[in-house]
This record gives sequence, structure tokens and C-alpha cells, in this order.
Amino acid sequence: MQPWLTLRHMTGSHSTKDIHKNISRSTSSPNSYAAPVLFELHPLMAFPECNPSQEDGIEGKSQPTEESCLHKAWARFLKGVSYFSGDMEVFGKWMEKQFILLQLLDWVLRGASQVMFVNNPLSGLIIFAGLILQNYWWALNGFVGTLFATISALILQQSRGAIAAGLYGYNGILVGLLMAVFSNAGDWYWWLLLPNIFMSMMCPIVSSALASINSRWDLPVFTLPFNILVCLHMVATGHYNHHFPQVLIQPRSELPNITWSEIDLAKLFRSVPVGIGQVYGCDNPWTGGIFIISLFISSPITCAHAILGSAAGMVSGLALSAPFEDIYFGLWGYNCVLACIAIGGMFYALTWQVHLLAITCAFFCAYLGSAIANIMSRFGLPACTWPFCLSALTFLLLTMGTKRIFKLPLAKVTYPEKNLAFYWRMKKEEKAEKTEKEKKTIEEQLNAINEERILDEKEQLQQELSRMEEGMQC
Amino acid sequence: MQPWLTLRHMTGSHSTKDIHKNISRSTSSPNSYAAPVLFELHPLMAFPECNPSQEDGIEGKSQPTEESCLHKAWARFLKGVSYFSGDMEVFGKWMEKQFILLQLLDWVLRGASQVMFVNNPLSGLIIFAGLILQNYWWALNGFVGTLFATISALILQQSRGAIAAGLYGYNGILVGLLMAVFSNAGDWYWWLLLPNIFMSMMCPIVSSALASINSRWDLPVFTLPFNILVCLHMVATGHYNHHFPQVLIQPRSELPNITWSEIDLAKLFRSVPVGIGQVYGCDNPWTGGIFIISLFISSPITCAHAILGSAAGMVSGLALSAPFEDIYFGLWGYNCVLACIAIGGMFYALTWQVHLLAITCAFFCAYLGSAIANIMSRFGLPACTWPFCLSALTFLLLTMGTKRIFKLPLAKVTYPEKNLAFYWRMKKEEKAEKTEKEKKTIEEQLNAINEERILDEKEQLQQELSRMEEGMQC
Amino acid sequence: MQPWLTLRHMTGSHSTKDIHKNISRSTSSPNSYAAPVLFELHPLMAFPECNPSQEDGIEGKSQPTEESCLHKAWARFLKGVSYFSGDMEVFGKWMEKQFILLQLLDWVLRGASQVMFVNNPLSGLIIFAGLILQNYWWALNGFVGTLFATISALILQQSRGAIAAGLYGYNGILVGLLMAVFSNAGDWYWWLLLPNIFMSMMCPIVSSALASINSRWDLPVFTLPFNILVCLHMVATGHYNHHFPQVLIQPRSELPNITWSEIDLAKLFRSVPVGIGQVYGCDNPWTGGIFIISLFISSPITCAHAILGSAAGMVSGLALSAPFEDIYFGLWGYNCVLACIAIGGMFYALTWQVHLLAITCAFFCAYLGSAIANIMSRFGLPACTWPFCLSALTFLLLTMGTKRIFKLPLAKVTYPEKNLAFYWRMKKEEKAEKTEKEKKTIEEQLNAINEERILDEKEQLQQELSRMEEGMQC
Repeated sequence: MQPWLTLRHMTGSHSTKDIHKNISRSTSSPNSYAAPVLFELHPLMAFPECNPSQEDGIEGKSQPTEESCLHKAWARFLKGVSYFSGDMEVFGKWMEKQFILLQLLDWVLRGASQVMFVNNPLSGLIIFAGLILQNYWWALNGFVGTLFATISALILQQSRGAIAAGLYGYNGILVGLLMAVFSNAGDWYWWLLLPNIFMSMMCPIVSSALASINSRWDLPVFTLPFNILVCLHMVATGHYNHHFPQVLIQPRSELPNITWSEIDLAKLFRSVPVGIGQVYGCDNPWTGGIFIISLFISSPITCAHAILGSAAGMVSGLALSAPFEDIYFGLWGYNCVLACIAIGGMFYALTWQVHLLAITCAFFCAYLGSAIANIMSRFGLPACTWPFCLSALTFLLLTMGTKRIFKLPLAKVTYPEKNLAFYWRMKKEEKAEKTEKEKKTIEEQLNAINEERILDEKEQLQQELSRMEEGMQC
Repeated sequence: MQPWLTLRHMTGSHSTKDIHKNISRSTSSPNSYAAPVLFELHPLMAFPECNPSQEDGIEGKSQPTEESCLHKAWARFLKGVSYFSGDMEVFGKWMEKQFILLQLLDWVLRGASQVMFVNNPLSGLIIFAGLILQNYWWALNGFVGTLFATISALILQQSRGAIAAGLYGYNGILVGLLMAVFSNAGDWYWWLLLPNIFMSMMCPIVSSALASINSRWDLPVFTLPFNILVCLHMVATGHYNHHFPQVLIQPRSELPNITWSEIDLAKLFRSVPVGIGQVYGCDNPWTGGIFIISLFISSPITCAHAILGSAAGMVSGLALSAPFEDIYFGLWGYNCVLACIAIGGMFYALTWQVHLLAITCAFFCAYLGSAIANIMSRFGLPACTWPFCLSALTFLLLTMGTKRIFKLPLAKVTYPEKNLAFYWRMKKEEKAEKTEKEKKTIEEQLNAINEERILDEKEQLQQELSRMEEGMQC
Repeated sequence: MQPWLTLRHMTGSHSTKDIHKNISRSTSSPNSYAAPVLFELHPLMAFPECNPSQEDGIEGKSQPTEESCLHKAWARFLKGVSYFSGDMEVFGKWMEKQFILLQLLDWVLRGASQVMFVNNPLSGLIIFAGLILQNYWWALNGFVGTLFATISALILQQSRGAIAAGLYGYNGILVGLLMAVFSNAGDWYWWLLLPNIFMSMMCPIVSSALASINSRWDLPVFTLPFNILVCLHMVATGHYNHHFPQVLIQPRSELPNITWSEIDLAKLFRSVPVGIGQVYGCDNPWTGGIFIISLFISSPITCAHAILGSAAGMVSGLALSAPFEDIYFGLWGYNCVLACIAIGGMFYALTWQVHLLAITCAFFCAYLGSAIANIMSRFGLPACTWPFCLSALTFLLLTMGTKRIFKLPLAKVTYPEKNLAFYWRMKKEEKAEKTEKEKKTIEEQLNAINEERILDEKEQLQQELSRMEEGMQC
């Protein structure tokens, strides 16, 4: 039972070095953990009727045929995949018993990936790799932001489960990154770390406050704290500031020069990964590509919707005749990426209707993105991820008469594949209950009919009896 | 019993031709429907104690006097009126059994009139007539908007009752109209239909999302979806856009030239109907006049408040020294019209206190309108109906200690006259309960007194008896 | 028992003349009222175990030693203090039986002090004295605003208790004052009273509407109605208006000229009281000083947090490199003053953790203040107290796992000292319950042990008995 463990090792060691050890230690985790994870991956993996106990039984046998050998290998492979895909539950549970600093590192990595709704330290690690590829200084700021946001959440005694899932870190990484991206003081301006730390420590406060409001409608806070805090910092200091000057952003005041013959298809195609990279403020297509890989590792459905969203944003940009530079730079994509992920399988259980809804949401988000960017530019502000937040919240508030669009309770949201498994289980149970009920009704009807029949027979017998008695008496 | 049916025919045929047939078909509707409608119109019509059964009885008699003849004619007239005034319930019920396309037309027409809180296809028809008088292209866009908003609501499986009342169409007509009004590409720019259809199809989504929030306070969504979506479209494209350029709107940057001697009283007077027309973005006073007629047909109270609101807006404009052109153009009126209708009898039951509140709200709305117009102009946006929405929501959130200002539960809101009937019935029931209670208390007190008296008498008798016995023993 | 009554007289007569009589009449109030007030002040006064009944008993004795004499004097002093500090409950109760105009004056004065969360007519009087010192015309406008806001609340039949606590007046005074401060028409422009009266009469409507929303989260409305209404008036009229022109406020468009060597430490120090004065729009440091006194009279904790908040704002201004003039002018202080008071003991029970939270909130508020001032300046608007409202609401929405940060139910909020007493009493009760429970558990365990022992003994006895019987039988 070792090959897939090695596989995980490999994957771990390929992408990173610094947290190699903790991951390799996890090999000692008992196999029993794997069962539920594998089970949850079933719907995705299209690998029916493979329960581990049965598999263990097979292993005990002495003459495996070639087919069962392949079968076994595939099962092992899946089990291996289950250890580092999804939300890496096994690893998370193993982490709970480790030293606090190691745990903190796990939370920070999960926080980094939670920006894309992914709760996976491996994805987080890959994302940090992508950030380092983009810019060292930005990556450092992002790390500091995530770290202090998580520490602040610990100080404020927020829910330990939410902290461990990285839910207090993702706003921190965005605050740290984007404050560095939009700073006009150049890289390695160390004073910037001061407002960075202050703002990222405010993240859990704003998150908690917003959650108090949004929880009334069972809605997540998304990246609203990041939006609020980065806009706060940028507009409080502004372009004309001695300590923390911001990049100058100005509204458009003349017709942009758009010549359709000059369109560069290669760049247009490249804008799809760039759009995914722009979620973290990165314009390097390779960084965007690395992010796509990190998404695929955790959840292929998320990855597919991210690409779809970015494409939808690009198309919208062309439809609304945006300057090509903006489209190439991924500014039309990143909000749609997030909106499409959020609606397509994350907070709704994925069905065809939900898939269509997610694409609609991506187009709406692109429209909204253009509107918000124009408004914010009047204040010298970027659009941040306001368009994503507002469009996703709108689509999550939607109430419909159909059962094919099922909004998961917020407490049950994990990742699209698991959400789908939850939805299917729920539907099956409902169906079972229904058939049970129908069975009962039929049985009751049968009983009633039987009883009636018996009563009728009794009556007939009594009548016959009375007739006989009458005859006797005569 | 046919004269009023003819009357309805006439009204129908006067204003329109294309949907003449469906209306004429409705003559076959059973009379039994009329009774409740007539009853509901009583409070308005000041026509007491005329129940149809009694009337039928009278008809059976052979020697009617002249007076009873007049009486009968009046009753028939009222019954006739009840068929096309109010919310045309009878017609709506009859429509339920018709072909889906006919139903859709009914819903679209009701949607057109719902902008003014009127649920009446006849009013909708007249309103479309007014729009055609103003501008063919705008009317077409409005129709397309209403149609696609209603279709989208059907696709999204929203409540059939709300769709049939036109509650998903009124944002659509406004979106369609105002996108055409504010487009800088000139009339008959057919590409505009694309964003028009997209935005009007987004209406039910935004409506549903906002309703999820507002329903917590039992508040309607008003025209918020329209405001959001039109502002979205306008600011997303802006004045400097190749595909969908918008009209240039700029903030005031110098003292307007106002000479009080140059005021034109005729134009000032005309600004009242123009203000009502501006609800649909129309500056033609005749169109405004037609809208007044359409309001009067459905609900005279609504009509009166619309005129009052427009006048209040005009006065506010003068008080805040607005440029006369703005006042003449009806820009100070249309929000006040809607606010005054909403508060004056629509969501509150009409009493004198509510009437005063409605006028206060109109003045507040005018103030707010000026403020919002100034803010929005910084983004190149018109004020839309934001001022109305915000002021009406504020006044609906008001809680007071008095019972004379009664906010109707949202599910019971129909039209001012019916609302008033509901309020009166409720008050009567309360009174009846109260007197019942008082009666009971008095009866109980009487009983108690009687019982006491009986007890006293018993005691006296017993005492007498014992005395007698004592006498006997002696 | 008269000395402190004189003291109160003195304080009253020093600061005002016109309402001297009503206060002096209050000397006839029965002493029995004083007891609970004194009790409530205990936590602040650090004067343990001095209940009035005991004190009265001491008085009855004939040979007081010197120590008990001091003790008595101190007790009397405290009792005296209790009559005009805190929320002056005794005076308020006595007022209930007075003529309505006198009551109205009381409500207006309490309204004036409620801006700082102080419910004390004496503080209100001192505040009006400070305003008169600043500017007669502003003070008049403030008085008119408070008066009409209170009258409007009476007309709208709002809760009498809230009106009597001045909760409908504080927005009125701010509306009146700030409309006068930001008017560009110069002092004594009498027409200004018209919008002033209209806007202050709108205060209770907006307050009530906002309370309907905020009460869902048990939050106060703070000065939101003032912010909304003053911004409304200013932006509705604007700088370029014939009737009500506003002061011209423009966004910063170049680097401010900041030379750190030119900093004036005296002015920097003076900015602390100026910041407190700016809560009412006053830039006179003496006025600020008078306000500090008025705060100290009612609640020393409030006073301390006000000074801390103003200092925090000043420091933030330096950190974000604001122009020195803005800092000297107190623009960085006033929001922090209010935020620090609100969090530090007013809506949370004061502990060390809450104290730190209040200081954090003050810094956050300063940041937010700079941001909002920059945004509002684009519309020609001042920041008003939006930053305070938003930051305080955010910090009040915070939910934490710790019990050391206890948010008081809104209905129990009075003033920091009384809040603290409430919190301590609650904690004591909880502790008592806990020990009670523990006692019970121990007793039950003891009982169980005893019962077991008894049973064991019984059994042993029975066994012995049976043995003896066996022995007897042998």
C-alpha cells in the first residue's frame, strides 16, 4: 500500500521545499482516514462501488487476475489523489496534533488558496510559488498579510475551525498583495509593511462584523473585507501623499482608440490565464497558469469554471468595446473567474441549470465590473473585487421555484465535488423517503381493501348464518 | 344588463386596436364575478347598501318607480365601472383560462401600469398609447423590455401570481425605455436591443435578490432593480464608448442664471403633467395627460396623489432655486409623483394623517432628488428613481405610536380604494370584538350581581326558616 | 443635608441663568430618590459598603468620632454628586411632574449632551454655553434644531422615554449647527432657519426608519440621521445656489506642503480639546475645554476616552502625513472622540480588553475618516460623522469567543459607570449561580455517598441479624 504514498511525496516535493517535512510525516496517518475522503470523491472520479474494505479484502486474496490488478492500481491511485486533492481533510486532521507554528503555516497556506474558494495547503503552496515568480516583494507582502490576519483572528478568539480552514487568511493575502501592487513608492519600501500589518489585522474584525449581517441571509462575506480595507487605505492616503502614495488612477475622458483590425489573437487567448492571475493582482500569464494547476489539484470543477469565467469576461470586454489593453491585462476576467466559481458548484450544487446560471453570472459580473471600475476611477480607486462580491451575492439571494437549483446551507459548503455528493445523497434520501411513503400508502390501501373484503365476507357469512338459522327455525 | 358591457367595449376600442378582441371576448364572463369587485369599490363610490342579489330581486318586480329606475341604472353603471377599474380582477381571472400568448400580453400591459402601482391592463394599454405619442422607438424598447423581463421571470420559475400582476414587468419597461432615452446613438439604433434584452432579463434576478432582503422588513422592492440596472448599463458604457454611447451628463459648476421675472407660469403649470410623464422618461405634456387618465381609470386616489406629488416637486424646485428649465422639464416632479402615490393610500391605508405624511414625503423626496441628481451627475448618471425609492422606503420603515397610520401587510396591498376597504373592515371587526368583550364583561357583572342577590335572598330565607323553626320548637 | 444641594445650585448658576429656577426647585425632591443613584455610582466612586440606611442610622447616634465625621461628609458629598452626575435620574423623575414647556427644555438640554452619549441636562447647559462662546448664530441654530426635532418626535408619537432621554434631539442639534457652519451665506441669514426646521423635523423620521433596520442587530442609529440629512441639504443645494449656498469644499489635487521642522507642538497639543470641540463643529479650544468639563461632570470614563480618542486621531493624522492645518483644526480628532467613547464603556462593559478595543477603534476611525473625507470632498461635502458611525457599527457587530468583551443589550445602556455596575452585578449573579450549582452537586454527591453508606450499613446489619438468627436457630 505504499505506491500512492510515494506519489504524494513526489507531488509535494516537486512544488515546494520548505514544508516538505510535515507532509512526509503525514505518511504515518492511519489508512482509516482515507475511506470517507475517497467516498466523497466518488462522484467526481466516476469510479463506482469501490469501497476500501472490499479492496482490502481483495488484497488478502492470493491469485489476482490482470484485470483486478489494474482495478487495484486505479483504486490505489484514487486513494492517493484523495490525500492531496479536495480540502486535504486527512492532512488537516493530522496537523491538529502538531506544533502551533506548523499549524499556523498550514492555515496561512490554506488562506492563500481560499481566495479561490479552495481549502488546500498544497494549492496554497503552489499559489505562493506563482506569486514569487511574479514579484518577490508582492509575495512577501501577501505572506505578511495572511500571517497577521490569521494571528489577529487568534487574538480575537474567532472560531478555531474557520481559522484552520484559512477563512480568516484570504482577505489578508489580498490586502497585503494589493497594497503592494497599488503602492506608488516602488518595491522594497519597507514602511509599507506598517499599514499592511494594521490593515490585515483589521481583516478579522471587518469579516466578523460583515458575517453578523450576512449570516441573516446565510451568505458568505466573500472578499468584502479586502475590498473595504484596500479601498480604505488607498483613498485615505491617495496619490498625493508623502508617506504612502498610491498609483494614479483616472477616469476615461475621451473615446478610446480601438481598431478592430489591430486585435492580437495570441494576447486575447493569453488573457484567459492572465485573468485568473489577476485575482491575485498578477499579470504574468505563467503565474496564471500555475494558479490553474493549483485549482485543478484541489477541484477540477472549480478549475473549469475559473477558465470559463475568464473567457466570459474577455468576451464581455469585446462586446462593450473596452480598450484591448485592458482585456489583455486580464482586468475583464478576474471578477468573472471568482463569480463563476462561486455560483458554479461552490454555493449551489452543480446541475446543468446551475452551470448556465454561473455563466450568466459571469457575464453580469463583467458588466458590473466595467461599471464599478468607471465609478471607482473617479476616486482614484481600482475596482478590486467589488463586482464579484456584488454579483455573486445577488445571484445567491435569488429564490426560485425549481428544485434543480439548490443552494447549499453555508455550513455544508466544502468544494464542488463534495457539495455534489451531499446534494445527491440528500436527493437519494428524499427519494427513499418518498418511495417509503408511497409503499406505506399502498400497503395501507391494501390493508383497507383486505379489511373491507373480510368485513364483507363476515357480513355475507352472518347473513347466510341468519338465513340458515331462519331455515332451522322453520 | 348589457349597457355597461358596451361601455367597457367602447373604452377598450377607443384606446387601442390590437388587443381589442381579447377584451371583447371577456363579455362572456359570468356576472357572479362582479359582486366582490363591486363590494370592494363601495368605499370609493359612496354608494351604500347596494348588493347585487337585492338588485336582481328588484328587477323581478313588475312596477318599478322612476327613482328605483335611476337607482338601477346607477348600480349598473357602477358594476360596469368595476369591470375595468381597480385591478380588473374579473378580467384577470378570465384571462387565466386563455392561450399563453394572450396571457403574456395581459401581463405585459399590467407590467406597464405597475410602474405607477396600478395593476390594470387597460391603464397599461393607455400608457403604451402615450408612449407611442411620445416616441415610437422608445415605446418599442419599453415593450421589448417588459416582454423579456416577464419571459425571464417565467424561465426563472418565479411566483405565477406576481408575474400575472405585472410585478416582474414594470422594471423591464423602465429599463427598456430609459436605456433608449439616455442612449446617445440616436433612435432606431437596433444594436441597443441587445443590452436592452440582457438587462431586462436580469430584472427578475435583481428583483428576487432584493426581495429576499426587503421582505425581512415587509418592504417592496419598488423600482430599485431598474435603478440598479440602468445605472449599471450607463456607467459601464459611459459617454465615451464606441458601441453604446450615453448622453453626456455633467455636474453644475457655476451659478445658474435665474431671473424670477422671467418665470413662465403656463410652463410652470404644464410641468405638473410633464412631471407625471417623466416617470416614464417622457417630456410631452399630452403624454403626461394621457397617463393621468390611465391612473384615474384604475384608481382616483392614486391619480389625485400623483398630481399632488408633481405639484409638490415643482414647488420644491422653486424653493431650492433650481434652474427653471429643469422644473419645466418635469425633473423635479416624477420622483415626488411616485413617492406620493406609494405613501398616500398604496402601502398605508388612507387617512388624513397618512395624506399629510404623503405630502411630507413628496417634499422630502424632492429635496433628496436634487441631492441624488447632483451626486449622480458626477458619474455622468441621471437620478433615475433613486430618490423615490429611498424616500418611500424611509417613510415605510417609520414606526409610530398612533393607530391612525396603518401600514398594510405587503401581501394585502392592492390599490388605495381596496386597501381602505380592508382597513375599514379590520377596524370594524376590532370594534365588534371590543363591544363583544364589553358586553360579556357587563353580562358577567350582571350575573355576579344576580348571583349575589340570589345568595342573599337564600340566606335571608334560611335565616327566616331557622327563626321559624326556632319559633316552632318553642 | 444641605451643603451638596448648594453645590448643585452653584454649578447650575455658574453656567446659566435662564433655567436656574427649575433646578433650584428640584431641592425639594425627596432624599429617597438618591439611594439607587448613589448605589449605581459606587463602582466609579470606589466607596464600598456605604448604603444610605446605614448612614442614616449613624446620623441618629449622638457621639460621632472624627473619622465617622469625615466618612459622613464624604458620603454626603457623593450623594450630592449623584444628583447632577450620571444621567440625573432623580431630576428627570422630578421633571415628569412639571409643566410641559419645562420638560421640553429638559429634553432639549439632554438632547444637546446626547451627541456625546451623555444624558444629562447640566452637561447640555454647559455645552450650550460653549456653543455661545463659539458663535451666537450657530448656538441659535443648534437650539432651533434640537427644539424642532424634539417637537417633531412628539407629533410623530415616538416613545416618550426616548424623547425624555434626548434621543430625538441630538441629531437635531447637529443638523442645526452644521447647516449653519457650512452655509456660505454668512451669519444671521435668517432664511436658513427654514431648511433648518424642515431638516430637523425630518430627524425623527429618519431615526425611526434607521432604528427599524439597526434594531435587528441590536445596534443604535448613532448620528446617522444627522449625517444623511446634512449631506442631503448640502448636496441638494451645493456651492452654486442662489438661496442656500454652501461652503466650497474641493478634493486635494497636489502634494501638500509638509515640512516636519515647522511643526508647532503647542498647536498640536491644543488640537486635543479642539478635536472634542469639532464634534459640534467648533474650532475654539476653550469651547472644547468646556465640553471636556461637561463630559467629566456626567461620566469621568466618557471624558477620559474622549481625550484618548482625540489624541489617537491626532497621532493618526501625523502617521498618514496629513497637512498640519487639518490636524490643528481638530478634523482628525472628532470622529475618534465619538468612536472611542462609544466602544470604551458605553456599549461594551469596560474591561482592559474593551479599553484596548476602543483605542484600536479610534485608530481605525481616523483612517476611515481620512478616506471618507477624500471621497466626500469630490461631492463638495464634509466628512460629517460618517467615519465614527461606520467604525463604531463595525466594532459593535464584532462577535468574539471571549466573555471579557461583553456587549450590553441596547435597552440596558446608560452611562459607562452604570453599565459597569450592571456588568459586575450580572457576573456576580452568574458566579453565585455557579457556586450554588457546584454546592448542589457536591451535596448530591454527599447524599449519594451517605445513602450508599446507609444502605451498606443496613445490609451489614441485616447480614449480622440473619447470622444471629441462624445462631439462635442452631
